[in-house]
Amino acid sequence: MKFYDCKTAPSPRRVRIFLAEKGIELETVQVDLGSGEQFSAAFRKINPDCVVPVLELDNGHYLSEVVAICHYLEELYPEPTLFGRTPEERATVLMWNAKVEQLGLWAVADAFRNSVKALTNNAVPGPDNYLQIPELAERGRKRVGQFFKRLDGQLADNDHVAGDLYSVADIAALAAVDFASWIKIKMPEDAANLARWYEQVSRRPSASA
Amino acid sequence: MKFYDCKTAPSPRRVRIFLAEKGIELETVQVDLGSGEQFSAAFRKINPDCVVPVLELDNGHYLSEVVAICHYLEELYPEPTLFGRTPEERATVLMWNAKVEQLGLWAVADAFRNSVKALTNNAVPGPDNYLQIPELAERGRKRVGQFFKRLDGQLADNDHVAGDLYSVADIAALAAVDFASWIKIKMPEDAANLARWYEQVSRRPSASA
Repeated sequence: MKFYDCKTAPSPRRVRIFLAEKGIELETVQVDLGSGEQFSAAFRKINPDCVVPVLELDNGHYLSEVVAICHYLEELYPEPTLFGRTPEERATVLMWNAKVEQLGLWAVADAFRNSVKALTNNAVPGPDNYLQIPELAERGRKRVGQFFKRLDGQLADNDHVAGDLYSVADIAALAAVDFASWIKIKMPEDAANLARWYEQVSRRPSASA
Repeated sequence: MKFYDCKTAPSPRRVRIFLAEKGIELETVQVDLGSGEQFSAAFRKINPDCVVPVLELDNGHYLSEVVAICHYLEELYPEPTLFGRTPEERATVLMWNAKVEQLGLWAVADAFRNSVKALTNNAVPGPDNYLQIPELAERGRKRVGQFFKRLDGQLADNDHVAGDLYSVADIAALAAVDFASWIKIKMPEDAANLARWYEQVSRRPSASA
């Protein structure tokens, strides 16, 4: 297998943390998003949607999308589980992974991609050009603030995002919090549960991936 | 188990089609999104994020998010599979389910929620108020057009969205195409593969769910 990564980007980081938690080492190719390598003819054959991460399988097929790549690796390397141990726990992990993406990661991405100078004409990930919408950047910032409150509430009753198990939902949430810091959105000062969780998950060796 | 539905909405429709394909019958509660029942104190206890679908389990726990609900039901009722038969096929189904959501369903939702009069102050699903952004509605319409082309290309080489198997990715894509028709976005006339697939999946009895 071969892993197409970009060391500086939040989405492939979710896979890097997953690999570190599992102790999996893969041949890794860096895709230079800064210079637009994701739009090259060579990379479009790997993923026509022009985003990383991508996993190349031993049969030459390609998988993209974080949840799909991690699910595949979970089946090949089941221990330690990062998706859950029972049908209900697995569904709860998938639920929280989806909530963190929609309420957190995509909101940070809206705020980031619709405001930074380097993406003026490329506000949506992928091969097509879209101009930035400053109002959407502002909406994204507000939504991230609401997401942090939501997560703080969830973590008042749970050690981890989806319950007692450290899972892909924690990885997604860690990526969201650190991505938000790129555009100077901090966790609310009164979010004690979120701060406690963030300190815990950031201390895991995988967090440096 | 109990299924919290809204008969007119696209997201719970994905679960309704899934249930019909599996031949599962569940006690069903209609949540009246039109009158704002999702914001009631009673429903916030069921899902604080104020969206349907929700599945109430026999132990009283609640699951939301389409992918999580369907994954849970797939484990309880494995046949016929709607998630895939091998690790690679399951990952490919999850990948396409995610692509259809991000490139298709969320783009239609951007176009719809940022333009219809009933949602002037509620342009983002959930309990918080956000004003509509007309530019985002326009961007959403363009993105849906690009999504239809992308899907047409994928269906040139595959009977179904994620390969030869009818799966949750087809259900998501069917919901996206029909949701797009609400705001008069049609499949491109030259998208012959997409039209062939749409005719096939719409003919399944589950499509009327």
